[in-house]
Amino acid sequence: MSVIPKFAIRQVIDRDALASRYFEVRSASERICAPLAVEDYVVQSMDETSPPKWHLAHMTWFFEQFVLGHFEANYAPYHPSYAFLFNSYYETVGKFFSRLNRGLLSRPTVEEVYRYRLHVDGAVRELLHSIDDRRLPELASRIELGLNHEQQHQELLLTDIKHTLAMNPLRPAYLAEALGPRGVSAPLAWLEHDGGVREIGHGGAEFAFDNEMPRHAVYVQPFRIASRPVTCGEYLAFMDAGGYARPDLWLSDGWRAVRERGWNAPLYWERANGEWWHTTLAGFRPVDLEEPLAHVSYYEADAYARWVGKRLPSEAEWEIAARDETRDGNFYESGRLHPAPSARTRQFFGDVWEWTSSSYAPYPGYKPLAGSLGEYNGKFMANQYVLRGGSCVTPSSHIRPTYRNFFYGPDRWQFMGIRLAE
Amino acid sequence: MSVIPKFAIRQVIDRDALASRYFEVRSASERICAPLAVEDYVVQSMDETSPPKWHLAHMTWFFEQFVLGHFEANYAPYHPSYAFLFNSYYETVGKFFSRLNRGLLSRPTVEEVYRYRLHVDGAVRELLHSIDDRRLPELASRIELGLNHEQQHQELLLTDIKHTLAMNPLRPAYLAEALGPRGVSAPLAWLEHDGGVREIGHGGAEFAFDNEMPRHAVYVQPFRIASRPVTCGEYLAFMDAGGYARPDLWLSDGWRAVRERGWNAPLYWERANGEWWHTTLAGFRPVDLEEPLAHVSYYEADAYARWVGKRLPSEAEWEIAARDETRDGNFYESGRLHPAPSARTRQFFGDVWEWTSSSYAPYPGYKPLAGSLGEYNGKFMANQYVLRGGSCVTPSSHIRPTYRNFFYGPDRWQFMGIRLAE
Amino acid sequence: MSVIPKFAIRQVIDRDALASRYFEVRSASERICAPLAVEDYVVQSMDETSPPKWHLAHMTWFFEQFVLGHFEANYAPYHPSYAFLFNSYYETVGKFFSRLNRGLLSRPTVEEVYRYRLHVDGAVRELLHSIDDRRLPELASRIELGLNHEQQHQELLLTDIKHTLAMNPLRPAYLAEALGPRGVSAPLAWLEHDGGVREIGHGGAEFAFDNEMPRHAVYVQPFRIASRPVTCGEYLAFMDAGGYARPDLWLSDGWRAVRERGWNAPLYWERANGEWWHTTLAGFRPVDLEEPLAHVSYYEADAYARWVGKRLPSEAEWEIAARDETRDGNFYESGRLHPAPSARTRQFFGDVWEWTSSSYAPYPGYKPLAGSLGEYNGKFMANQYVLRGGSCVTPSSHIRPTYRNFFYGPDRWQFMGIRLAE
Amino acid sequence: MSVIPKFAIRQVIDRDALASRYFEVRSASERICAPLAVEDYVVQSMDETSPPKWHLAHMTWFFEQFVLGHFEANYAPYHPSYAFLFNSYYETVGKFFSRLNRGLLSRPTVEEVYRYRLHVDGAVRELLHSIDDRRLPELASRIELGLNHEQQHQELLLTDIKHTLAMNPLRPAYLAEALGPRGVSAPLAWLEHDGGVREIGHGGAEFAFDNEMPRHAVYVQPFRIASRPVTCGEYLAFMDAGGYARPDLWLSDGWRAVRERGWNAPLYWERANGEWWHTTLAGFRPVDLEEPLAHVSYYEADAYARWVGKRLPSEAEWEIAARDETRDGNFYESGRLHPAPSARTRQFFGDVWEWTSSSYAPYPGYKPLAGSLGEYNGKFMANQYVLRGGSCVTPSSHIRPTYRNFFYGPDRWQFMGIRLAE
Repeated sequence: MSVIPKFAIRQVIDRDALASRYFEVRSASERICAPLAVEDYVVQSMDETSPPKWHLAHMTWFFEQFVLGHFEANYAPYHPSYAFLFNSYYETVGKFFSRLNRGLLSRPTVEEVYRYRLHVDGAVRELLHSIDDRRLPELASRIELGLNHEQQHQELLLTDIKHTLAMNPLRPAYLAEALGPRGVSAPLAWLEHDGGVREIGHGGAEFAFDNEMPRHAVYVQPFRIASRPVTCGEYLAFMDAGGYARPDLWLSDGWRAVRERGWNAPLYWERANGEWWHTTLAGFRPVDLEEPLAHVSYYEADAYARWVGKRLPSEAEWEIAARDETRDGNFYESGRLHPAPSARTRQFFGDVWEWTSSSYAPYPGYKPLAGSLGEYNGKFMANQYVLRGGSCVTPSSHIRPTYRNFFYGPDRWQFMGIRLAE
Repeated sequence: MSVIPKFAIRQVIDRDALASRYFEVRSASERICAPLAVEDYVVQSMDETSPPKWHLAHMTWFFEQFVLGHFEANYAPYHPSYAFLFNSYYETVGKFFSRLNRGLLSRPTVEEVYRYRLHVDGAVRELLHSIDDRRLPELASRIELGLNHEQQHQELLLTDIKHTLAMNPLRPAYLAEALGPRGVSAPLAWLEHDGGVREIGHGGAEFAFDNEMPRHAVYVQPFRIASRPVTCGEYLAFMDAGGYARPDLWLSDGWRAVRERGWNAPLYWERANGEWWHTTLAGFRPVDLEEPLAHVSYYEADAYARWVGKRLPSEAEWEIAARDETRDGNFYESGRLHPAPSARTRQFFGDVWEWTSSSYAPYPGYKPLAGSLGEYNGKFMANQYVLRGGSCVTPSSHIRPTYRNFFYGPDRWQFMGIRLAE
Repeated sequence: MSVIPKFAIRQVIDRDALASRYFEVRSASERICAPLAVEDYVVQSMDETSPPKWHLAHMTWFFEQFVLGHFEANYAPYHPSYAFLFNSYYETVGKFFSRLNRGLLSRPTVEEVYRYRLHVDGAVRELLHSIDDRRLPELASRIELGLNHEQQHQELLLTDIKHTLAMNPLRPAYLAEALGPRGVSAPLAWLEHDGGVREIGHGGAEFAFDNEMPRHAVYVQPFRIASRPVTCGEYLAFMDAGGYARPDLWLSDGWRAVRERGWNAPLYWERANGEWWHTTLAGFRPVDLEEPLAHVSYYEADAYARWVGKRLPSEAEWEIAARDETRDGNFYESGRLHPAPSARTRQFFGDVWEWTSSSYAPYPGYKPLAGSLGEYNGKFMANQYVLRGGSCVTPSSHIRPTYRNFFYGPDRWQFMGIRLAE
Repeated sequence: MSVIPKFAIRQVIDRDALASRYFEVRSASERICAPLAVEDYVVQSMDETSPPKWHLAHMTWFFEQFVLGHFEANYAPYHPSYAFLFNSYYETVGKFFSRLNRGLLSRPTVEEVYRYRLHVDGAVRELLHSIDDRRLPELASRIELGLNHEQQHQELLLTDIKHTLAMNPLRPAYLAEALGPRGVSAPLAWLEHDGGVREIGHGGAEFAFDNEMPRHAVYVQPFRIASRPVTCGEYLAFMDAGGYARPDLWLSDGWRAVRERGWNAPLYWERANGEWWHTTLAGFRPVDLEEPLAHVSYYEADAYARWVGKRLPSEAEWEIAARDETRDGNFYESGRLHPAPSARTRQFFGDVWEWTSSSYAPYPGYKPLAGSLGEYNGKFMANQYVLRGGSCVTPSSHIRPTYRNFFYGPDRWQFMGIRLAE
């Protein structure tokens, strides 16, 4: 993590610009929570999600632990128990409260968590203005990491809130006015790419996570990749053809998931009055067949691809194909908070994270960050799959072609979709 | 349930007196919740507990279902989903939301639940004043049942809140000023009782639950019963003598519980700085050895009794011994919210529920209430044990010598204690 | 356990008669296993059952531990690991192998287990003939306990074998020639009994388990009890009336069992070609509607009784009603190994164990055996129900009116049936 | 699967040579089982293992299903239930008995299973001699697949037997005389390899599984690979340095496995009298520090590599490094049945399967076999890791440089070891 955020480099690092970006990103987390009732902040709807209150405090602890604690020799933590409560998984930092029980904590209250945020924000601002020039680059670098971390949790906030609201029989909406006008998906076309030795991974000076580095050569066979993600209508055809009842289409672990979890549709889909409806952040709505499909597991993505005689792209193929595409897309800032057809782009960026066939593994020559920050990414490089491109709830400034997201095969609560290859 | 609450009988039933008792009991529930943060209303800390919000709504639904819905032919429920959400276990009334997931519901909000209470309270008051004289006795009877039901949940509110706060590493107190002055327990004496045929159970005109009836004859052997409950100090001697490590003292199911749950002390006890502390509703405090012991399971009560060469009383023995004792005691109204030594009474009533050796079973000739209310008590008459006497968080008007409480052998989160017999 | 088996008392205890009874009972265990393939000895079909091999060795260890080891100061165990492997649950004797994993042990082989039996039988015989007269009564007493223990396991051998064979898709029979001719059940009549103070429990000089003592007074209300057990045909009427789908008929724990375990018929019943069939020890057969019903849980017995507007008898009622009935019945020795209608008796003894409504609890004044043998019965006196009367696989010499068998509410793999009361 | 085993090609396929190889491989399975007691054939010691009896029958069912049933239009199965009992996981063939319950089946007996084998062997021989020349190549091809399948199960037979015997407190040996003389491991050296585009995968005419194909180009960075596997002594240094207590060395999923499963040493290792011992197929023995380490999970392999500052090789690196090495090694035929140091080879082949860092995934252009045989390999290509090289219980004729074995990260019961790379 020695890179310095690009915008902050002139001749010297601009402390004001950094402070301004800090407050912009931090306040975005609070804006996301604005529509919530106090009660919504408390609930953990399944093992994989966390209460919004916990996210807000954890992102703050991250700055306390890795910024304030790192630069101030005698830093006194805001509260003696918060490191225990809000450390997510940094084993080398100390013991932490069980992730499965985050929903059992009514205290600290929401108000106390916001007070905690204010306190830490003040301390970061002060540090930013008082630190000597020599240590400024490292501070800038660690703040940038903290802000990218915050943005990751902003997406999780939205997907976790969606999950919590969706399981409530009252079907509350997060923001009833989201979604926006309907559209029509473009016909599916195939983009041709030659094979050969190519380079992938992050190589520039801008911020990137350690798992995107180093840039390195790979050999790819010639391939074709779809011009847009799979739509709900296309996936419905798979469902109507009995896709969830044909073991020959599924990976063995996928078929077990289908039977054990009783899957017969994407997450959030429900049959009502003879039609398919689903929960969106704007409430319970009929499925729009033109929209990009979301909320399918790796296994469903793989089975669908097998059914149409195609396959999922590798992450190398995806990156090669995506890097010349426009990065403009349907991100969090669009306010839609749901995938939408696009007449304008090929939707490599935004809308839905796209499952690749690649297991999440270190690139050749991968070096994790030093110290406890080395736990950020590297230790998860087993049993997960890489997803690419960001979604409709990803902050737009957070994404890039080399960005590697990763989830377990059965996970579905992120906006996960499918792009085909062959 | 044809009995009419005694206080409400003169020549005719006094509608005002009934309305006044209704509001007194109902508002007590709200008074119990007054010290809570909104967040505290949401959490379900284990399968056996419920969020305070849920209790408040459920007690209200009980009046909607069994009072308003019973007397008003076209009664329109306050909300179409509340019967589903807040029915606890009445299978014959309709489907209900899984008890294990009550903590996953952030909505309805606390405010909405209080609005629900207000609405139903208004409707009950209106019904009480408008109903014709002919149906008034049945209404009075059902309201009385609802109020007794509410009082049961008031106790659960306090024990569930205690459990939730106790598992929070921040150790918040419910009411820091509770507890009061310390005292000293009287020396243990033995009260002698002859054997022979005796009558137990409820036979009068006052309200009692169906499970207390009918009054009936039993044969008891001569017995002696302790003059007060076991104290923390006495139980500590059992612990110090290795009681939790000696399988010969335990029932087989109890010994399994010890090993599987890692029990080595009563619930809420914790070793800190070489002393035993425990969580109380007034926060984390050193154990006072003079206090009556609470928060032990049936198995711990039984093992302790075996260790001292005694046994637990049967519920018949307990009732015979208790019925001539003063019913004055340390109940919810004392504000202490914790067991306390008494120089004044033998503590059959209040302080701690006392485990008896009797399985919870129907009395000979038992008849459950008609209709869905028959599910209130009868269907739980398997695999549970009877406890007697009420506790420091029981409303004092709720208890009587014939009152039968019941819990499973491993349960500990109520204020459950031990009285010996031989 | 100071009682001496009656038959063995003259002026002095007859060593030959005792030796002869010893060999008779011990060889019965081996006769039960004779139809088995070696492979059948190894399997544990569920947590509650044990492999036949384990039973054979455990019964033998019982004599080694409580007879040979007790009387011979320097007794050298046959094998240093057998106490660990074949101790069932005597915590005070030492550690033991997990009951859940008994089916994972391929060794010792069946042959080695039989060799173990031979060795111990020789040592017991030798002890019996060499012991001095002074210690003979205690030896006789302990041998008698060991033989009664062996008989209990003989019944378990047959019910465990039935369970193992029943779950095999090949549907092997234990003994194809068992069962015998069909019969017709007598019409149901009601036997009247007055109420009042009565005595129950074992009081004589013959052998009985500690849990049957002491004889003591109880008060019973007047009652009526059925003249025979419920038949398969009667129970089928309950099933056909939707009994398994009506929560109002079930105890709460019972209804949970119905849903979680998917019960819709007694254990071993299966729908085939439009009829009900079931697994018997003679293989897969159509259900004979005239036969006494077997293989129902306490919950099913209770629900059936509620459906017909009756109830289960208490164990006191059962004992009072049964003690003047003939003890002749359909026991193991009949070779039928299945319940059968009887024109001759009221079937209190044999055919099926009859669930009573009584929780298994100590009688007033109960004293367990001294030492480790005190673990035989007492520690199981929680959460179980008493069954009475013996079954078609109980050795006939093993049963008496005061005999208390006990199982958990959900257990079904014994021959458990229903006798009604009111 | 259109390839024809090389040895069987001259001008025409040699029916006698094929028959002779068939009987050689088939009888090897029986030779492996020869030291077993009947009881050993029945036990399933954990979910991942199968009873030897089941393996013997399953391998036979494979020939019945995919050879006899394929070529004989009216083939009558040997037993109507065997397809249900002995189909392992071929969903497209029909329903099958739950893999978790294979140890609950005492029947068919061992003798019946051997009779089944004889019957099918006779039918295959007859088919081999009677089939017309036109269909002979396909028959040869399917038999070859069946024999390779049989060899895979021969290895599983030995590892499953080892697991079953190891969990028995009696510590029986499979073959007390195995193991052989001790040796000394060569010093660790590093073999250098240039980077660039290389080809891996199977491309020849000999038999290979579908998952080894097609041969294809990959890009590898320059790498160095160890000259021999890690020894027990080297791994003990990691243990002594607290390797199992340092979360920073472990993948997140690995650390969870360490805590949840209580790992503190390789499988089968046990502390006895101050030394490390382990179960081998020759019984319980002190660990020989010179031997190649076996029975570690992927997570332990990965943590060890991190501790020494190295990494695991990718499967491409392994294959590139191994293909010029001698294939001679310590395989099943050596009779040692345990890893051993070698002064003679670099041990890429035999001794222990070597974990690679590569997730098990399809090669570019992978085509599964047609029909139900397509379930053989492809559907397992998720969440598993590739191991290479074969072990001391692999039949030597079964292995080749392109061979891809695969197991889940936590699996340890195969002979799994570590070769380092950097």
